[in-house]
Amino acid sequence: MSKLFVRTLREDPAEAEVASHKLLVRAGYIRRQAPGIYAWLPLGLRVLGKVEAIVREEMDRIGGQEVRFPALLPAEPYQASGRWTDYGPNMFRLADRKEAEMLLAPTHEEVFTLLVKDMYSSYKDLPLVLYQIQTKYRDEARPRAGLLRGREFVMKDAYSFDADDAGLDRAYDAQRSAYQRIFKRLGLDTVIVEAMSGAMGGSRSEEFLHPTPVGEDTYVRSPGGYAANVEAVDTVAPPPRPLAGLPPAHVEPTPGTTTIETLVEAANRLQPRPDGRLWTAADTLKNVVLALVLPDGVRELMVLGVPGDREVDMTRLAAAVFPAEVEPAADEDFARHPELVRGYIGPQILGANAADPDRAVPYFLDPRVVAGTAWITGANAVDRHVFGLVAGRDFLAAGQAADRGQAPGQAADRGQAADRGQVPGDRAQGVIDAAEVRAGDPAPDGSGPLELARGIELGHIFQLGRKYAEALGLKVLDQNGKLVTVTMGSYGIGVTRAVATLAEKHHDARGLVWPVHVAPAHVHVVATGKDPGIFEVAAAMAQALEEAGLEVLYDDRPRESAGVKFADAELLGVPHILVVGRGLAAGVVEFRDRASGSSQELPLADAVAHVAATVNAALRAASELLVEGEGR
Amino acid sequence: MSKLFVRTLREDPAEAEVASHKLLVRAGYIRRQAPGIYAWLPLGLRVLGKVEAIVREEMDRIGGQEVRFPALLPAEPYQASGRWTDYGPNMFRLADRKEAEMLLAPTHEEVFTLLVKDMYSSYKDLPLVLYQIQTKYRDEARPRAGLLRGREFVMKDAYSFDADDAGLDRAYDAQRSAYQRIFKRLGLDTVIVEAMSGAMGGSRSEEFLHPTPVGEDTYVRSPGGYAANVEAVDTVAPPPRPLAGLPPAHVEPTPGTTTIETLVEAANRLQPRPDGRLWTAADTLKNVVLALVLPDGVRELMVLGVPGDREVDMTRLAAAVFPAEVEPAADEDFARHPELVRGYIGPQILGANAADPDRAVPYFLDPRVVAGTAWITGANAVDRHVFGLVAGRDFLAAGQAADRGQAPGQAADRGQAADRGQVPGDRAQGVIDAAEVRAGDPAPDGSGPLELARGIELGHIFQLGRKYAEALGLKVLDQNGKLVTVTMGSYGIGVTRAVATLAEKHHDARGLVWPVHVAPAHVHVVATGKDPGIFEVAAAMAQALEEAGLEVLYDDRPRESAGVKFADAELLGVPHILVVGRGLAAGVVEFRDRASGSSQELPLADAVAHVAATVNAALRAASELLVEGEGR
Repeated sequence: MSKLFVRTLREDPAEAEVASHKLLVRAGYIRRQAPGIYAWLPLGLRVLGKVEAIVREEMDRIGGQEVRFPALLPAEPYQASGRWTDYGPNMFRLADRKEAEMLLAPTHEEVFTLLVKDMYSSYKDLPLVLYQIQTKYRDEARPRAGLLRGREFVMKDAYSFDADDAGLDRAYDAQRSAYQRIFKRLGLDTVIVEAMSGAMGGSRSEEFLHPTPVGEDTYVRSPGGYAANVEAVDTVAPPPRPLAGLPPAHVEPTPGTTTIETLVEAANRLQPRPDGRLWTAADTLKNVVLALVLPDGVRELMVLGVPGDREVDMTRLAAAVFPAEVEPAADEDFARHPELVRGYIGPQILGANAADPDRAVPYFLDPRVVAGTAWITGANAVDRHVFGLVAGRDFLAAGQAADRGQAPGQAADRGQAADRGQVPGDRAQGVIDAAEVRAGDPAPDGSGPLELARGIELGHIFQLGRKYAEALGLKVLDQNGKLVTVTMGSYGIGVTRAVATLAEKHHDARGLVWPVHVAPAHVHVVATGKDPGIFEVAAAMAQALEEAGLEVLYDDRPRESAGVKFADAELLGVPHILVVGRGLAAGVVEFRDRASGSSQELPLADAVAHVAATVNAALRAASELLVEGEGR
Repeated sequence: MSKLFVRTLREDPAEAEVASHKLLVRAGYIRRQAPGIYAWLPLGLRVLGKVEAIVREEMDRIGGQEVRFPALLPAEPYQASGRWTDYGPNMFRLADRKEAEMLLAPTHEEVFTLLVKDMYSSYKDLPLVLYQIQTKYRDEARPRAGLLRGREFVMKDAYSFDADDAGLDRAYDAQRSAYQRIFKRLGLDTVIVEAMSGAMGGSRSEEFLHPTPVGEDTYVRSPGGYAANVEAVDTVAPPPRPLAGLPPAHVEPTPGTTTIETLVEAANRLQPRPDGRLWTAADTLKNVVLALVLPDGVRELMVLGVPGDREVDMTRLAAAVFPAEVEPAADEDFARHPELVRGYIGPQILGANAADPDRAVPYFLDPRVVAGTAWITGANAVDRHVFGLVAGRDFLAAGQAADRGQAPGQAADRGQAADRGQVPGDRAQGVIDAAEVRAGDPAPDGSGPLELARGIELGHIFQLGRKYAEALGLKVLDQNGKLVTVTMGSYGIGVTRAVATLAEKHHDARGLVWPVHVAPAHVHVVATGKDPGIFEVAAAMAQALEEAGLEVLYDDRPRESAGVKFADAELLGVPHILVVGRGLAAGVVEFRDRASGSSQELPLADAVAHVAATVNAALRAASELLVEGEGR
C-alpha cells in the first residue's frame, strides 16, 4: 500500500449518483477522463481482468474462438448494413487525413460478417462462433452512473454463423447457457427477459438483467413465467367491435378542459352517460404531439392517440421509433401547426383523417384503440370536445387507410430496429405500442398479471437471422451445392458494466465488499501501530500468504493511523482482512470478514494456515456455485 | 484445425511488401480492415498475448503498476501541452455529439501527468512507474508493411515520475534494463541508439532497433561505440575560418549547368582553379527549395543550402522540422516565386541576404557551411554562377542576421520536437542539419568513421524532464515543504510491431518459424492418410500432449491431402511438428523440427514423452537466455 498507486477519497465525487460509481472512484479503482469515459487504475484493472477471464473461459468452453477487431473501422460496411445512418448521433464518426469516413464501432456485426465471407465458403465450415473482448464506443446522449452507461466500454461480443435455422437455435442456446454460467460464476443473479416481440422473421432476443432499483431498464414478470423488457411488452388489445348501430359522434362545449382530469369532470357534469355510469379517463382519447428526429437529422411531428388513463412511456416509445429519436413537441412545433389546438386535439384533422392527408401531421394509435371503440376526444377547437367518436368509422391511423407513405422512423427496418424488439409491421399499420405498462396489466401470453421491476442489462443475446449476411453477401454452398445465405446470432456482455454491477451488489455503507474470486486481492494484511516489530511480522505473514498461493494486499504504510487503515481496507473491499497489531504481544492476530464484519483472534503460529484455508474454501465455494450451475 | 478459424492463402496479398506482412496474412494470423488497421485472428491473438505477457512481466518486475487509459480522450490536455496542434494530421480527431473536441490518443503523457497530479502531492509518493498495454492511434500519411507501420496498434507505454533528476536517471536505467530483458526474452536482438542530439535540458533518449534491411529507420555505428538514429546524428562541422584576405566573389557564365555534375564540369573547363586542383561537387553550394506544411496546414517555402556533394536526407529533414511536414517544392511554388531561377539559385536573394528580407524566402544552411568557407553557387540568373561566395561575408542564414522572425516549424518547440532529437536552437540560428549521413563520416564523439544500417524501432525510452509536468502543473512538496515540478520519463514498446518483427526474423521461404515460447502452439500434430485408425491415434497423442502441459494444434482435417497439411504446417510455423501417418503401421511417428527441417522417427510408445521433453527443453532454453540476460 505504501507504493500502490491508489488514493482513497472520503467524499463522493460530485457527479456520482449510484453506489458503484461513488465507491469505485472513492476507492481508487477508476478515474473519470471525460463524460462516460474512465481510466482503470491498478486495483480496478485487476477486477476487470478477473471478470474478463471468466467470460473468456465460458466462451472458450462452448467452442468460441477469440479474435480481436479494431475499434476504428471504415464506414462502408456500416453504410451497407444501414447502421451508419441508423445509429444517428450515437455513433462516433471521424474522417482520416484522406477524408475517408470512419467510425468507432459500437458493435462489429458488419466486419465479422465480412471476415467470415472472406474466409469461408461451405456449409462444412460451419457452425462457427467467434468472439472478442474489446473496447466499444457509443456517443450516449446522457452518459451516467459511472461505468453503468459509458461512452467507451469493454464488451464481449460474440457472433455465430450457421447454415440453417436449427444451427442458429443451437448456437443461441449454447450462448444462453454460457451466459447463465458466467453470471452465476460472477455471483450476479439475473432475470432473462424477452427483448423483442417475436416478429421480424422468427428472430428471438433476450436480455439478462440484474435486478436492482438503480437499473436503467424496466422489466415485467408474470406469475406464469412471462418476463420481458418493458420495451418489448405487446399490449393485449381487445377484439374489434362491430360498428353497426353505434350512435353518431357529437361535438359539445367543454370549457376549460385542457387536461384529462378536467375533461372527465366536465363530461360527467355536462354530458352524463345515459346509463348512469361515470365517464373515466379510460373513456377519453389523449392525442400526444411528439417530435421525431430521424437519423439524418430531419425533425418530423407526429401525434399518438392513447387512452386517457395511460401516459406515453418515452422509453417504450423510443424503442418503438428507433433509430429515430423522439421528444415531446416544443412550442415552435405548435407554432408551425396552428391546426393543433393544445388541449383540444382530435384525430379528425390528423393523418389519413385530414382533408389533405399528405399535408397533415401523421397519426398513430395505441393498440387498445381498436375498431368499434368510442371515445371522448378533442374537437380541434378551444373548449370543445367530441363525444362518441368511433375508431374505424370516424377516424383511422396512418397505415389503416390506403398507402399514404412511410411510417415515421421507417429507416429502422433496414437497420438495428430488430435489435430493439420492434415490429415495424405494426407501425406501418398505424399502431405504436408505447403507452405505459402498469402493474396488474395482463401478460401477453395469458400467464397472469404483470409486476414491474428494474434491472441492469448485463447481457443481450440475439438471433440476427440473415439480415447482415444478406446486406453484405455472406453465402455458403449447402449440401446440394447451392448458395445459401448464412444465418447469424449476436451475443453481447457489458464487461465493464459487469464490474460496476458487482460493486452495486456487493457494497455496504463503509465501502466495497468483493466476492473473493473477483476481488483485487484475497487478503488485505493491515499492520497497525508504530513498533517496527509489528511491521516485520506483518511483512513476513504477507509473504507467507503469497507463498501459499494467495493474492495479498499489504498495508505497510508507516505513518497512517490504524483508523485510516481500517477505513481504507473497508472502502477497498478485499473480503478477508488480517490485522497485525497490538495483539502481537499476546501472540495473536485478528482475522476479519469484510462482509459480515465478524472477527476472530488467531494464534500467530496458525494464522497463515487458517487464512489460506479460509480463502481457499471461499474460492472453492465460488467454483461449487459453478458446478451447481452446470447441472442446469 | 477442422474447426479452427483459419484459412491459409497460397498467394501473397497484393499490397504486401515485407515478409511479416505477407506471411501473417497468408497464414491467417491477421486480416486487413483498412489501411494500417488489422483484425487479429485466433492464431495471431495467441502470439500477441504471449508477447504482451512478457512485456507485462518485465514491467511488473521493475515495479511498474499497470493501468488502462481510454483511447478516446478530450482535447484540452493535449491543447495545454501543444500536441493537439503539433501532431497535425497524424492525430485522429473527432467531435462528439455535443461538439466537444476529442482525439484518439497517439500516446498518453498528458493524461498520466494529470492523473498523478490528481492523486499525489508529496515527494514521499515518488518514485512512481505506471504503464499500460493499450491500443494507440496515429493517422500515418503512408501506413505500410502490415503491422510494422499501422494506424491502430498496441503499445506498451510506461511513464515515470520522480522528484529529482537522479530519480529520473534511475527510472530511465531501470526501463532500459527491462527493455534489454524483454527483447532478449522475445529473441529479438536490438541495437540501442541515441535518438536525440543532447540539447533540450539534458534530456536523454534512446531507441531499441532490431537490425534488418526491411526496417524503416537508418542508424549509424562507429568502431568506438557511438550509435545513433541517423535522424539524431550531429554533423561534425569544421571550425569557422578568418574572412580577412579572401578574394571577392565574381559572377561568371556557366551555360547549361542546372545540375551539380554539369556545373563542376563547366567550372573546371571555364574557371579552372589557379592552383591546378580540380573543382569538385564539395566546392559547390546546392540550394534546395522545399515546402513546409505547418501543423495548422499553412504551406511555406524555404531554401536549404548544402554542399553539392550531399543530398538532403528527407528523413533527417522531416525530423529536423517536426511537427511541420516537408516535401520538395512543386511547380506551383516556383511559379509563385519567379526570383527562384531553377538550377541557378543562390543565397544572395534569400532570407536575410535579400533586399527585402521580410518578403524573401527563408534561407537555412547545412552546418558545414561555416563562416569563411567559399562556394560556387547560383547567381540567380540563367546560365550564371557566382564563384568565391563567402559564408559570413557575402551571405548569412536566417537567424545569423538580426532577429528576423521565426524559424520554420518553430511551433515544434512547444511540443514533441524534443522527442525527435531536434535542436531548435540550431534552427533558430539558421542551421538545419539534414544532409545525408554517409558511411565513413566521422562520429560526432570522435569515435571513428560511421557505418550505416537499417532497423525496426521496437522501443523508445525518453527522459521527458519537466515539460509535461510544467505544462499541466504537476508539482509535489519536497523535503523542505517547497513545491517542485515533477520530472518524468516516457517509455514505449510497439507490441504489435514486435509480433511483426518476430515474423520478420523467424521465417523462411515456406512460412513462419516461431520461437517456441511465443508460438501459437508448441506442437503441431498432423494426421495424414485416410485410415480412421490414424486419426484415432493422432487424436489420442494430441490429447496426451495437452495433458502433459503442452499447447497443441491438431490437424484433424479428414479431406485434406498430406501435402496440403504439410504446407499449412510450414506456413503456420509451429516449431515442432509431429506427423502421424503411414509409419504407424511400423509403430513409428515422425517428429519434425520446423526451423531446421530435420526429422526423426519416434517409436509410438515413446513419442509423447520425447516430444514433451523436447518442447520443455526448448522452453527452458528460452528462459535460460533470460537468466543470462539478467547477468548484464
